Amino acid sequence: MAKDFPSRAENYAQWYNDLVIKADLAENSAVRGCMVIKPYGYAIWEKIQAVLDRKFKDTGHSNAYFPIFIPKSFFSKEASHVEGFAKECAVVTHYRLKSSPDGKGVVVDEDAKLEEELIVRPTSETIIWDTYKNWIKSYRDLPILINQWANVVRWEMRTRLFLRTTEFLWQEGHTAHETREEAVQEALTMLNVYADFAESWMAIPVIKGTKSPAERFAGALDTYAIEALMQDGKALQAGTSHFLGQNFAKAFDVKYLNKENQLDYVWATSWGVSTRLMGALIMSHSDDHGLVLPPKLAPIQVVIVPVFKNAEQLARISETVIPIKKALEAKGISVKYDDRETYKPGWKFTEYEFKGVPVRLTVGPRDIEQGTIEIARRDTLEKEVLQLTDIGNKVIHLLDQIQKNLYDRALSFREDNTFRVDSWDEFKRVLDDKGGFISAHWDGTAETEEKIKEETKATIRVIPLNNVAEKGKCIYSGKPSDQRVIFARAY
Amino acid sequence: MAKDFPSRAENYAQWYNDLVIKADLAENSAVRGCMVIKPYGYAIWEKIQAVLDRKFKDTGHSNAYFPIFIPKSFFSKEASHVEGFAKECAVVTHYRLKSSPDGKGVVVDEDAKLEEELIVRPTSETIIWDTYKNWIKSYRDLPILINQWANVVRWEMRTRLFLRTTEFLWQEGHTAHETREEAVQEALTMLNVYADFAESWMAIPVIKGTKSPAERFAGALDTYAIEALMQDGKALQAGTSHFLGQNFAKAFDVKYLNKENQLDYVWATSWGVSTRLMGALIMSHSDDHGLVLPPKLAPIQVVIVPVFKNAEQLARISETVIPIKKALEAKGISVKYDDRETYKPGWKFTEYEFKGVPVRLTVGPRDIEQGTIEIARRDTLEKEVLQLTDIGNKVIHLLDQIQKNLYDRALSFREDNTFRVDSWDEFKRVLDDKGGFISAHWDGTAETEEKIKEETKATIRVIPLNNVAEKGKCIYSGKPSDQRVIFARAY
Repeated sequence: MAKDFPSRAENYAQWYNDLVIKADLAENSAVRGCMVIKPYGYAIWEKIQAVLDRKFKDTGHSNAYFPIFIPKSFFSKEASHVEGFAKECAVVTHYRLKSSPDGKGVVVDEDAKLEEELIVRPTSETIIWDTYKNWIKSYRDLPILINQWANVVRWEMRTRLFLRTTEFLWQEGHTAHETREEAVQEALTMLNVYADFAESWMAIPVIKGTKSPAERFAGALDTYAIEALMQDGKALQAGTSHFLGQNFAKAFDVKYLNKENQLDYVWATSWGVSTRLMGALIMSHSDDHGLVLPPKLAPIQVVIVPVFKNAEQLARISETVIPIKKALEAKGISVKYDDRETYKPGWKFTEYEFKGVPVRLTVGPRDIEQGTIEIARRDTLEKEVLQLTDIGNKVIHLLDQIQKNLYDRALSFREDNTFRVDSWDEFKRVLDDKGGFISAHWDGTAETEEKIKEETKATIRVIPLNNVAEKGKCIYSGKPSDQRVIFARAY
Repeated sequence: MAKDFPSRAENYAQWYNDLVIKADLAENSAVRGCMVIKPYGYAIWEKIQAVLDRKFKDTGHSNAYFPIFIPKSFFSKEASHVEGFAKECAVVTHYRLKSSPDGKGVVVDEDAKLEEELIVRPTSETIIWDTYKNWIKSYRDLPILINQWANVVRWEMRTRLFLRTTEFLWQEGHTAHETREEAVQEALTMLNVYADFAESWMAIPVIKGTKSPAERFAGALDTYAIEALMQDGKALQAGTSHFLGQNFAKAFDVKYLNKENQLDYVWATSWGVSTRLMGALIMSHSDDHGLVLPPKLAPIQVVIVPVFKNAEQLARISETVIPIKKALEAKGISVKYDDRETYKPGWKFTEYEFKGVPVRLTVGPRDIEQGTIEIARRDTLEKEVLQLTDIGNKVIHLLDQIQKNLYDRALSFREDNTFRVDSWDEFKRVLDDKGGFISAHWDGTAETEEKIKEETKATIRVIPLNNVAEKGKCIYSGKPSDQRVIFARAY
């Protein structure tokens, strides 16, 4: 199973790629840059979807579905949007194939050329605002609070499974409001939903903040983001929430009659997370033995492995184990009892360790005699022999402990790898030696930001929300600065 | 609300289209043939998805995700498949746009032409079997039981909301097996899952059967289908399950080492239902007052409308109503309490009637005094005044009754509109006068089938499973026949 699998220290990028493939999470497909999400990987994504979907509904949103295609001209309606999205994209130009003249295969039928090309959506603001135009007449039609679960396509030149793929799965919320304040509040509410999900479910601590103007979403007045730190010291943007102002309302002429009976443009937000979260989840917790999953998102939370030499022993073990399995399942725990005879216990241990199953229970003939059971936790690889009595509550308690431990561990890692830096030399040295989050002064200009990026590949990840005001000098230009921002090299 | 809304008798097609739009289920988008599924419509689709997804998992399937794009050459690998699907499709030829020379908007960048065109999937057999090739080595890797929830695109010339759209949402199961028998059994198992879902959840009676060779899925050895009868006497194919034999295994060279240590091709099935089910649901039960939804799939199962003249009255009503709402919700019933003051009770009655909410409760000041409540059922439009005591159980009972009544009503309709026909004149007369299912003898040839279709637009919907053997003469050719088959004009 874990053969030819480098450690993180040896080759982090290879470790990640091998982990994704060997743990049966995803693989590359025959279509350049598009991945196949395999059942084990998709089961994690389904858990992510279920939790987020519940949170979206609890905050008043409904799901809907908009077309996958966007007429090319729509992109040109919002000036910065076309720059940001329309250029690297999949373009549908024809709607028919015909038999090849040589009789081998099919070719594009040039008679079936579209009058206007269609773009496979890279994001849906334009088609959605073109739709909202017809839905919004008066303040009574507001707010509109809609989310869509969908696939999107961005033609990426260099792709990596989950982290950057040509097609990916995501959700995109698109809301319309009467006032600026209400829209800003919505963007912040959803940022908090994402942060809570990352921390409480994925066990990944995140920094909430705003993006610098250069890093904003194409068409946004403000982009809020949650940023996480991976084990190689690189940052990963795990979710974004955009305050779009009235840009899309103006581009698509969406006005409403307000309570004062006057026409005004609508205020907007959009917000999204994608299968990129899978990459964050894998990289945050996994180790050189394979995947480590937080219990709340693990498709299999507990695996039970029987150790037996013959059918009689297995039967006796099953008698003990099946009631335990049922008791755990009754409490909502997903349990797999792997009683296959075609694989040895040692093989199974490695397999489930590699796949990141949080808790393993092992029962052999001696355990049956002695009323004991071995419990192993994936996060610390610790094992313990316990009395069978009350094993159910112990497992539940251990799952909670593992969830908490993964978060604490990731938080410690982030704290150990966040550096306050006050000189340009130190900035470069820390970046190269350790990576991590660098908290440093910045003069607030796009020029400086761009130069720092050019020279070091580090970008401003976020300006933290509720940042402490602190007078200082820009790390690069030496000009005065009012606050520190968070720099890092990023995925 | 229901203004300018024709009755079924006046104009069935218009009735359907208006219903879909005015009940906020879906609408046409700016992209020809692609629909926007609105929140109320999507909420029904989510319920459909949730139930089916549970059934797929209970029958051993896992979800996964495969790319939206399929290389053009893949379609040519399975001969009949290319005929059936590759021709009317969205073709991606370029991956970049650039600024237009005139500075206005964007144009296709001819330098960014794909070496091989990509087709937006019309169905995923080819890309999936190209993937399975790498997953299957020996009998230990079988069966593979995978489902995908996805969007697909088929370039339809004439589209109708839900029934036939260029893009639609669906699920497609793709399974791989060791033996022919196992694959046939899988195809039948999924047919039964679909039939049970249609009857027990959608309240739509269906006929299970096989398609004639001419109506088979492109690439299948056998196509099983469930057929439902709509109120206008036309048939609607509500789900299909295909036994693919070894066709795709051969096309993509997928062999496995069997238990006898010999290489053999794998056996396959695929099966799917789509947002077309929404069309079936709407057309089966709705009436001239609007939508009628079976309680098991209704987003709002119970609406409570207070009748009040002032805030004090509303407060007193809410005191009574809110505990009822909570008690129903605790039993898993979705309840909306519409206490908006901006709309009159009469408007609300029409609104929820139009949207097909199965049960309406109305409470006014006199009800509060007398301890009564009015209960109205959408299916029969009957109203009754009940004592408040035990209203919870009464509502639950009524929801069950409505579910059953809708099924019974649809079944009676189908029985009243299924005709045994023994002559060609009668066949044509019944088709034109009444429509419906026609049970008639067929000589089993594709020529006759084609001629009947040309002359009457009727097709063989299914050859029912467990059909009774009956000697007869073909309705069209007069040649001998061993069984009756079901003809109809169809959506």
